[in-house]
Amino acid sequence: MRYTIGLDYGTNSARALVVDCADGREIGTAVVGYASGQQGVLLDPADHHLARQNPGDYLRVLEEATRGALAAAQAAEPGFAPEQVIGIGMDGTGSSPLPVDANNVPLAFAAEFSARLAAQCWLWKDHTAIQEAEAITAIAKQLRPHYLAKIGGIYSSEWFWAKLWHCLKTDPEVFAAAYSWVELADFVPAVLCGVSDPRQIRRGVCMAGHKAMYAEDWGGLPDGEFLAALDPQLAALRERLYDTAYDASVAAGTLCAEWATKLGLPAGIPVAIGEMDVHYGAIGCGVSEGTLVKVIGTSTCDCGVVAADKQPADIPGICGIVKGAILPGFYGIEAGQSAVGDIFKWWVEGVCGGDSALFQSLTTEIAAMRPGQNGLLALDWNNGNRTILVDQRLSGLLLGQTLHTTRAEIYRALIEATAFGARAILERLKEYGVPVERIVCSGGIAEKDPVLMQIYADVTACEMLVSRSAQSCALGAALGAAVVAGAYPGFPEAQAAMTGVKPFSYKPNPAATAVYDKLYALYRQTHDAFGGVTATAALGNVMKDLLAIKQAAQLG
Amino acid sequence: MRYTIGLDYGTNSARALVVDCADGREIGTAVVGYASGQQGVLLDPADHHLARQNPGDYLRVLEEATRGALAAAQAAEPGFAPEQVIGIGMDGTGSSPLPVDANNVPLAFAAEFSARLAAQCWLWKDHTAIQEAEAITAIAKQLRPHYLAKIGGIYSSEWFWAKLWHCLKTDPEVFAAAYSWVELADFVPAVLCGVSDPRQIRRGVCMAGHKAMYAEDWGGLPDGEFLAALDPQLAALRERLYDTAYDASVAAGTLCAEWATKLGLPAGIPVAIGEMDVHYGAIGCGVSEGTLVKVIGTSTCDCGVVAADKQPADIPGICGIVKGAILPGFYGIEAGQSAVGDIFKWWVEGVCGGDSALFQSLTTEIAAMRPGQNGLLALDWNNGNRTILVDQRLSGLLLGQTLHTTRAEIYRALIEATAFGARAILERLKEYGVPVERIVCSGGIAEKDPVLMQIYADVTACEMLVSRSAQSCALGAALGAAVVAGAYPGFPEAQAAMTGVKPFSYKPNPAATAVYDKLYALYRQTHDAFGGVTATAALGNVMKDLLAIKQAAQLG
Repeated sequence: MRYTIGLDYGTNSARALVVDCADGREIGTAVVGYASGQQGVLLDPADHHLARQNPGDYLRVLEEATRGALAAAQAAEPGFAPEQVIGIGMDGTGSSPLPVDANNVPLAFAAEFSARLAAQCWLWKDHTAIQEAEAITAIAKQLRPHYLAKIGGIYSSEWFWAKLWHCLKTDPEVFAAAYSWVELADFVPAVLCGVSDPRQIRRGVCMAGHKAMYAEDWGGLPDGEFLAALDPQLAALRERLYDTAYDASVAAGTLCAEWATKLGLPAGIPVAIGEMDVHYGAIGCGVSEGTLVKVIGTSTCDCGVVAADKQPADIPGICGIVKGAILPGFYGIEAGQSAVGDIFKWWVEGVCGGDSALFQSLTTEIAAMRPGQNGLLALDWNNGNRTILVDQRLSGLLLGQTLHTTRAEIYRALIEATAFGARAILERLKEYGVPVERIVCSGGIAEKDPVLMQIYADVTACEMLVSRSAQSCALGAALGAAVVAGAYPGFPEAQAAMTGVKPFSYKPNPAATAVYDKLYALYRQTHDAFGGVTATAALGNVMKDLLAIKQAAQLG
Repeated sequence: MRYTIGLDYGTNSARALVVDCADGREIGTAVVGYASGQQGVLLDPADHHLARQNPGDYLRVLEEATRGALAAAQAAEPGFAPEQVIGIGMDGTGSSPLPVDANNVPLAFAAEFSARLAAQCWLWKDHTAIQEAEAITAIAKQLRPHYLAKIGGIYSSEWFWAKLWHCLKTDPEVFAAAYSWVELADFVPAVLCGVSDPRQIRRGVCMAGHKAMYAEDWGGLPDGEFLAALDPQLAALRERLYDTAYDASVAAGTLCAEWATKLGLPAGIPVAIGEMDVHYGAIGCGVSEGTLVKVIGTSTCDCGVVAADKQPADIPGICGIVKGAILPGFYGIEAGQSAVGDIFKWWVEGVCGGDSALFQSLTTEIAAMRPGQNGLLALDWNNGNRTILVDQRLSGLLLGQTLHTTRAEIYRALIEATAFGARAILERLKEYGVPVERIVCSGGIAEKDPVLMQIYADVTACEMLVSRSAQSCALGAALGAAVVAGAYPGFPEAQAAMTGVKPFSYKPNPAATAVYDKLYALYRQTHDAFGGVTATAALGNVMKDLLAIKQAAQLG
């Protein structure tokens, strides 16, 4: 009997999962919240863009969650013993870089920096670096347009270089004191392996490629001349980062004695390369060529892969085609919607002032509505559009309201809008030759909202499968560990044994799809007009067509 | 000392007002609700389009409200005696026709019809006749396009012929039993005058022209051939309606002995012609050439006049240019917004689930916001667009939402949308040569919502005056009575003495107007695109421009 452990570092807490390598059974788990700040996030009342995390929390939860999961596994399965654990893997949010000293110790651990926000981990959703991101985009457009081609044309304030540059500008002392910077998903594996030189950390290509403009094609990280055009100190830092980034086929290293003792695990077992949470999540859902994984939560991430021997074309509006990201031997393709669950939360809690009880009653109400019956059309852009327009400066839209429109009808329209956004992504992928024969969903919404899932199936005319595991990210990390530990020759074999889908699925209802085809045409018409896709648009039909669809729906 | 009484028949209650003819002072008033149905409206749970009223209520409130107002006047002014009342005037909602027998007795008073909804008064907001209205529009387009030119191109389900035709189709017994049909605003004056033959009722040209397609130009009501194309029974009915309609320069008749006794007033005093509520309201606000009156309530009605010797051109999108309507000697021009207060009520009560306390707190919040700061743009079409698009099949739109948008910000956007709609009407009137040098507002919102009124001033760059009287409609009816009673040679003299504005007004703030000019450009761009005014539109700028305006507003 052999087991691996998968660690999933989320925004507010971390989970450890003990997995049976034979079949993917999850025999023990534990979740531990980060103790610092507000639900684990350090905030600045003067700047709502700021979101940091205390690196000390990462180490404490590493120990507590792992030991908790091991104890749970022992309780659930008396035959289980920690000695049977053959590997450990980890995923985390990103881009969440933290500054470290020359010994790979977080600057935040030094007394003089412990209270400095710039010395903490810069959480993925920290948006303090908006200006720097815009400047990076502008300078890259001038000097290195090919850097932008792979990321959809716009560098984000959530990403590595923008955050480091903002630190340099706003807290130069911290920047100067930092020997190097490490992504959370590279930092935890490095700690487990006892790596004490930042230059020796094996960095994952997920973060490097998707967030730090790393690509083999141009020799790794952005070149020094380009970085010097931002700031010479960034060019100087480049030498203290890394030359090569790795896919998940190689291990980050092996578990060091110190952490083996802390965790109660055998020393020397392999530690998998860290990946972005959704990437290991995609693996845990069984991603493969032809199988698209949708992680549906506060936002949505769509992950697909194309074999490395058939390099995909740049796909307009798809920000993220990175060789080796997600599955080794494939190009990892990432798309997504900037807000999904967040839009529903905004509506139900923020605007309607409700809570989970209101969510429940609205869900009951909308379940009884027929497609088109609400007479509404929305654009799902309350947090901008990531795919297919790559434009953070777009905003939400709702039309079709009458004096009788209810909050439930609007709620359904917002769900439908996110489903239309999902369909736009699917159509774009297919249009550029990415095969999508199967869709596996994961995430809190996929698990808990059958009404939404049926709407997604009806709107996309695709069956929506749901990952067997409710912890796909942690499962994927455990699976990565199983591969580097040699339990399987490669990922496809490990996925065949360890992942799967739930026995039920959401199948499209052709009558509903027929209505949604009409509504999707109106969505695209409005989407293209406000998204600037079409230079001119005729929109005089939109409200009338909606009314006709509504009247037809009311007749049944 | 001479006094007149103005009666104002609203949707839920009627008001009587005793007015001093010398200066318009309101010395006594009483409001009496209609007893039947729900707040005076008979509803049908099976058809939410239906809204009827019990004609018996009209007679009961006539007596109670008048006697109540007289008692209040006596209490307030000891020198006052009912013998000093020299005339009585009345206005009512419209089009609100009711079927009567050959003696001008409502069919609803007959035992066999008392419980029949079709035999009651068909309240203005009854929308059961949607199909008939569409058919009238279609047939008129074929046979009598000039009928449509004066009403903006579309016959409404709220209007006279649509309602009568619907009665004929759905309750032919009632239709057959009806000798004639009378508008509420013609019925009450006829009762006061003791007119017992419907053909002898002096009908007002307001209702006739605006609701029944009456015009001198084509010999009165629609011709028999046209009506026969709808249904031969409507053509037959034409002979039992009227040939001539009157403006307010002539009296409907004189107070009969029976009603003089019931009301405690001198018999034989003149009774003014009935007008639509907002038309007498416009008179009570001091409407004249150059002075536009805006009655701002659940919806908005804009009333202007142009001297009868300079016939105005047909103004595209202005549904209602009727000679003699509003002020005798002028063309009455009516425009309006299909929903104003109703949109706010929909948002605050319907969607947010709040009450008057929420209205109050949202008003406090939005008062602190700068123009443009909400980053939102809305179209005020939740109940269609009356002016300038004349299209009931348009619907609401809101754009610019982020995940942080609040219900208060949306509330302000909805107010701003109605202000933009008001500006579109003003610009259209001016463009076609209707002089607007002065705007006097009236209605519940004008009285009670200074935040909204300031936004209207800022958006339109026009000073917003408020009518001195909070009961402009009843005051206008009393003024009409004063004129036909001979207290003044004509309306201008009566208006000069009896109407006025409040000492304060809302003056546009040039800095706010500068921001609203930009937002109005975006409103018109979106308005024209969705309204079908422009065959093609480029809209890619809208959300970005809104964001720029918002960012500028946040900087102050």
